[in-house]
Parts: sequence; C-alpha cells; structure tokens
Amino acid sequence: MKILSSILLFITLSVSAQNTDSLFIRSIYDQALSEGKAYEDLRSLCKDIGARLSGSAEAQMAIEWSKLKMESYGFDKVYLQEIKVPHWERGTKESAWIREKNGKLTSLNLLALGGSIGTDGILEGEIVEFTHLDELKKAKRSEVEGKIVFLNQPMDEQQINTFKAYGGCYAIRGNGAVEGAKLGAKAVIIRSLGMPIDDHPHTGSMHYEEDVPKIPAAAVSTKDAEMLSCKIKEGKSRLVLEMDCRSFPDATSFNVIAEITGKENPNEIITFGGHLDSWDTGEGAHDDGAGVIHCLEALRILKELKYQPKHTLRVVFFMNEENGNMGGKTYATWSKERGENQIAALESDRGGFAPRGFNCDGTAEQIKLLETLAFHFKPYELHIFEKGYGGVDIGPLKTTFEGIPLFGFVPDSQRYFDFHHAPSDVFENVNKRELELGCGAIGSFIYLLDKNL
Amino acid sequence: MKILSSILLFITLSVSAQNTDSLFIRSIYDQALSEGKAYEDLRSLCKDIGARLSGSAEAQMAIEWSKLKMESYGFDKVYLQEIKVPHWERGTKESAWIREKNGKLTSLNLLALGGSIGTDGILEGEIVEFTHLDELKKAKRSEVEGKIVFLNQPMDEQQINTFKAYGGCYAIRGNGAVEGAKLGAKAVIIRSLGMPIDDHPHTGSMHYEEDVPKIPAAAVSTKDAEMLSCKIKEGKSRLVLEMDCRSFPDATSFNVIAEITGKENPNEIITFGGHLDSWDTGEGAHDDGAGVIHCLEALRILKELKYQPKHTLRVVFFMNEENGNMGGKTYATWSKERGENQIAALESDRGGFAPRGFNCDGTAEQIKLLETLAFHFKPYELHIFEKGYGGVDIGPLKTTFEGIPLFGFVPDSQRYFDFHHAPSDVFENVNKRELELGCGAIGSFIYLLDKNL
Repeated sequence: MKILSSILLFITLSVSAQNTDSLFIRSIYDQALSEGKAYEDLRSLCKDIGARLSGSAEAQMAIEWSKLKMESYGFDKVYLQEIKVPHWERGTKESAWIREKNGKLTSLNLLALGGSIGTDGILEGEIVEFTHLDELKKAKRSEVEGKIVFLNQPMDEQQINTFKAYGGCYAIRGNGAVEGAKLGAKAVIIRSLGMPIDDHPHTGSMHYEEDVPKIPAAAVSTKDAEMLSCKIKEGKSRLVLEMDCRSFPDATSFNVIAEITGKENPNEIITFGGHLDSWDTGEGAHDDGAGVIHCLEALRILKELKYQPKHTLRVVFFMNEENGNMGGKTYATWSKERGENQIAALESDRGGFAPRGFNCDGTAEQIKLLETLAFHFKPYELHIFEKGYGGVDIGPLKTTFEGIPLFGFVPDSQRYFDFHHAPSDVFENVNKRELELGCGAIGSFIYLLDKNL
Repeated sequence: MKILSSILLFITLSVSAQNTDSLFIRSIYDQALSEGKAYEDLRSLCKDIGARLSGSAEAQMAIEWSKLKMESYGFDKVYLQEIKVPHWERGTKESAWIREKNGKLTSLNLLALGGSIGTDGILEGEIVEFTHLDELKKAKRSEVEGKIVFLNQPMDEQQINTFKAYGGCYAIRGNGAVEGAKLGAKAVIIRSLGMPIDDHPHTGSMHYEEDVPKIPAAAVSTKDAEMLSCKIKEGKSRLVLEMDCRSFPDATSFNVIAEITGKENPNEIITFGGHLDSWDTGEGAHDDGAGVIHCLEALRILKELKYQPKHTLRVVFFMNEENGNMGGKTYATWSKERGENQIAALESDRGGFAPRGFNCDGTAEQIKLLETLAFHFKPYELHIFEKGYGGVDIGPLKTTFEGIPLFGFVPDSQRYFDFHHAPSDVFENVNKRELELGCGAIGSFIYLLDKNL
C-alpha cells in the first residue's frame, strides 16, 4: 500500500507538473500573440535602421537601438561586449551589362559578393559558363584564362527542405572566385542562391586564398542568369562589369547582451540569440532581424510572466555572423575566460516563418531530451524534434564548452530563399503571426530547457 | 522452414511495395516541383479571368477555361455537369462614411456581404456597437430599434489554428443581419473576419430568414472597425451607407469534371476537388484557385507518370461553394442516380500554403487508415494525420454514400485569414513552392488511397 501511494503521489505530482508546464506555455503563447512587442520591434529595427552590415554606421545604430530596447524591458543586466569585425563596403558603382555582338548593351541585376574586390574601373571580357562548380574545377586553363566565369548552378528545387538546396550550391558563392582565379579568370559571376526565378540578386560571403589572385565576384538575379545563359548560347557575348566595393581596416563593434540572472545557478548560462548584423541590401528582416527579435521577445515574455529561472537566461545579439563570425567566436572565448558554465545554447537564424520544431546538435542523450519535449508543442503544431544543426553564432560554444548541446530553431523553410541576402528581405515579407508564433515557441523551449537541465 | 520462408517472402514483398510507393511518391513530388504546371495554371486563372462569383460572366469564363485546360491534359473524360446557382451582384455603388457631430465625413473600407439587399438610396442612422453576437441577442429592442448595428467581434488571435478563430466569429457574418433585424435594426455592419489589422474588408455569405425583415449587411476592414469603435466612444456618431447590391433569378452554371477511368473498378470513384467559384473581390487565388489547381495538377501528374488507377480518379471543380453549395449538392445526387459507388473523397479548400497533412471525417477504422499513411509523408514534412473536417463541396457525399470517408487537405493556416474573401486574395500572395508542395502531397495521397482502398 505504501508503494502504491508513492506511485500515486508520483503520478499526481508529475501530472500536476505537466499541467503547470502546459498552462505556463499557453500563457507564453498568449503573451506573444495578444500582447506581443515582436512585430513592432522588428518594424522599428527594419525601418528605423534597415540593413546593418558589420562595421557600418547602421550596424552601430542597431547596436545602440538594441541596447536601449533591452534596457526598456528592464532585464537584470544589459551590456555590450566589444569585438573586432571586418569592414567591407559596396561602394557606389555596381553595374554589369551584356555586350552583344552588334554592340547592344543589356544591364543585369547584380550585387557584388561580400568581401569582393572592385574592378578598378571598367572590366570587360568574354564569358564562359559552367553549370556546376565541379565543371569549372575540371576545366582546362585555356578555356578559362582571361575570361569572366559564369557559374550558373541552380538550387535544386526538388529538395523539400530549402536549406539542403542552399547547401548544395553554397560553394559556388564561397569558392567560385578562388576556383576561377586558379585557372586565370578575370572575374566570377554566379547565379544567385535564390529559389524563385526573379529579379532580386542575392549577395553573401565569399573568400580569397593566399597565393591565388583576388578577382571580383558578384551574383546576378536568377532571371538574369537564365537570360545570360540564353545569350551565351546564341553566340559570343561579352560581359562589362564595374564595381568599386572595397575592404577597410577591421572596425570595433559589439555583441549586445541582456540577461535574467538565475536564482539557483547564476553561473550556469543558457545562451540564446541570433545575429544583429545583416547584409547591406534589403532590411535584414528574416535574416536575422526575426531571429534576434524572437529571442528578445522570448526573454521579455518570461520576465513579463515573472518567471524566475534556475539558470541565467542570456540573450545575445551577435554581431558579424555574415562575414566572419567574430561575435560568436569572441563570445565563446570571453565566457570561458570569465569562468562561466554554458549549459545549453539556442539560435534562431532561419527566418521568421511558421515554427516547425527544434534541432539538436548534441549527444544521443541530449537528442533524447529534445524528443521528450516534443509533446509540449503538439498543440502549437510543432513536429520536428530531431538531430540537426544549431547555428553559426553559437557554433564556437561547442568547441569551448565540452558537452554543451546546441539547439536550432526550425521554422518552415519554403520561403526563406525567396528573400535571403536579397533586396526583398524587408519587413513587409514577414508575417506577424508567423513571427509571433516563433517567439512563443522559443520562449516555451527556453522555459523547458531551464526547468529540465 | 516453410513458414519462415513465407514470412521472409511477405517481408520482402512488403518492403518492396514500400520502396515502390516511396519511389513513386518521390516522382510525383519531382514532377510537381520541377515540371509543374500549377503555378502557371493558377496565374492564368487569376489574371486571365480573376474573381468568379456564381452566376457571373467571369464564372462562365472560368468554366470554359477549366474545360479547355482539362482537355489539353488529355484525361479519359472531361465534361460539364449542369447545375442551378444563385446570382447576386454587388452593383456599382458601395460606400460608407462615419458622420461626426460636427458634420465631418470619413469614408470606410467596406464590402457588402454576399446575398445582402441594397440600401435603396442613402441610409443613415445612429450606430450601436456590440463586441459579441451574444450581446446583440441579449440586447433590448429599445437599444437597437432604428439604429445601425455594428458587430465588432474580433477573431481570437490566441487560437493557434486560425480556422478555429474563424469558426468562433463566423456567426456574426452569417446571422448578424437576422439578429439585428429581429430587434428592429436598419442595417448591420460587421468587423471583417480577417486576422490582421489592415485596410482590406472581407466579404462572405450571410442569410436571411422568413418572417424577419431583410436589412443590408456589410463588412468594414479590421482597421476601420477599430477606428469606428473609437469614434463611437468619443461621442455619438452616425453611419451613412449606400449599397446597390441585389439578387437576380437563379442562373444555369456547371461543375467541371475530369477523370482517369479505373482499370479494375471503373464504377468505384475517388472524387477530389475544390471550388471554382470565388467571391467577387480579389482573384480567388487561395480561395479556392489553389484548391482546384492542386487537384488538377495531382491528376495531371498521375497521368504524366502513366499511373493506371484501380478506381476511377475524378477531379471536380465545384461551382457555388461560396453561396449555396449547389455544385456539391447536385454532384452527390447525380452520382447516386447514375449508380456510381463513391468510395472516398478529398477536398482542398484551405489555401495554397505549405502542406501540414490530411484530416479524415470518417469512422475510427478510416481514421486508422489515414494514420497508417503518415509515414509516407515524413520526408515531405507533413505531420497532421487525424480526425477532422473534409470540406463543404464533398460534404453532401457523406449523406448520400453511406460509409464514405471524407478527407480534407490541411495546409498551414497562419496566413489564410490575411486574404480570405478579401481584395488581397490575389495570385501574388501565393508562393510557388508552397502551391507545388500541395500538389505533390495531394497527388501522393490520391495514389495511396487508390492503392489501399
């Protein structure tokens, strides 16, 4: 009988704990959907500041905006963490034209890739097209030397998750200039890493290597890539390119941090955030305005509901995810040096779309924990709770804090590469409810992590 | 040993069947995503024809467009089924203003509700606001008589599935005029059944009852509802209304039908479809252009892949779902009279958004069947396979064919009530991939139904 009553007591307690969780999660969602600040905060970040590339005046404005916003919500601590970031500017000249045999010029929608050198005046050359980076790698020097390489490798639309399609094309942007230059190319033009056929060019990071000449690199819109390919097939066309983008010395910048101190284990930190910097086109609305606002709103709601966390809950607006990850790297080292214990981290950097679930980059046991949390989210239509990627910003925590699980917020991926790194990544393309549901999901997830770790 | 080999054979066969299914479903999705006609077909329906309310010239154009389109895909049979439909027209005058005490007029964004009578010239009256239909029902005649009732009942944004929020407000549109008229109101204005606060009024069906006077009914945008409520609180405001909408005698119209004849059981029919008619504002893109195109594309792909169905696969573009359901009612009766056996039906009428799963309105056993199909869709990120609603058009099949399971396609619901019955329900607000993934999901589901029934 004693055993039976203990079992009954245990069942009662655990049912009651589940009810508590269920009610608290419901109140987090209610706050997000009915009393939410997320949509207005994102509007202000996108419209009052806009694009905010590392090292720019706008990035500095965004840092100050973030600090003031966090202070206005009355968290226990709000502070800046100094970092050094690359400083690259697009400049004012950025044009490309096809020059046809008869001399006719047709302009292209184009964006220099981030980090590219300029053309130092007008650059003109014959175009040689490859439909896959591997084709370029296998090409003979004579096919490429002195020409402008056009990498027309489309994203694979048959991939259900668009991030897989992006992963499959990523190398043309990252390595195209190096591979072209190895064979003597004068410049590289890539087909934008965008899913729809439209007029928006998509920029993003690229890199150079020592001992390989630096050549200019840019992306044309997917529609112009189709057109360019067609013109090339019609006969010899030439490309005319002018870009005056350039790099400056590294600049001082900041991560922006807000926290609620843990009541039981203040030195055990749950870090969650996104990146405050964006590319210098559009407004960085989905990438990653939505992500930083998700996390800020999650912390705000937990405070609003007077939740007293066991561990310190810390939101980090990382700077420089797009072209260097100096925010993420510096943060991990700094935290280690302060003797903190990072026990879990979560990142939101896949846009402000309807939530689908969470990934875990961790041990089998940690993935098991994630799976046990799934049932809490069934009423909210989340269903992906499985092994997967955390995020770029929180990545360095993994190598710095042994055994830390990294979690990635997983929204629906279908529309992300319509907007990613493109002029179309603006506030108007973020849906209010979809954004708010992400805040609810992340707030609830952080609450469950805090209780279960 | 014999038993063991039988078991092994069974396992081998069933693994091989699963592989066949898995490969075939993959090929359906590949067709939808890479060789799909859906996006262009929807563009043409929305842009070449546009809104298509039952009884209108545009509805007739849409019928002819659909028949030609189906014929171009070479199905076994394409035909029209004659029906009678209501014929209501919005007319050319449709305006409302707030008249403030000082005489100032402020115009409102408004749409007459479908089926409403006109105002017969200018109608002006004092406004009385209720924030719930039940409040109006409980009101005294003296509070309402001779006034214009304003039903300002917002959709519940805390509902995760927006259709539940819609269900909670539906009665203000359907019954508002009757309830107002019972207490002597001159007209009824409702807050649009739209989720965001914006400028788009949302129309939709309403009804009158015998022995209750008919009064005009219209919907103002959610933003204007907020403003109107504010003005009412500031002091006595009056509303000025003019609408010349009216009803005409019933018109002849048609369901449009395409089928691939079943090889084994041609008289056993799997019906799937959506509705071709739309409200007379916007382009009926999500409601229900997406639904009819989903089903057309599913059948086209099955034909393209040379699938030979066991049962007859029949796509029906139902006419008149929005204001009478004469298409659905007539179809069920007609099919019964022809001695057909309807073995399952599916409807897509919740928009062209990213697929989440399928509902079943059926027996426990039929819901079980649905659940067993779920694993096929895991790679495609579908996760809702549960009891639920089928759809308005296929509803009459349930009472006509005993035991028939009805299935409803379930896309993500978050953005649906941004556009539903509003001028914003246009092609531009349908995402290509989201639409195509719906075609893949429905094509695969129909294939699995055909194989498993």
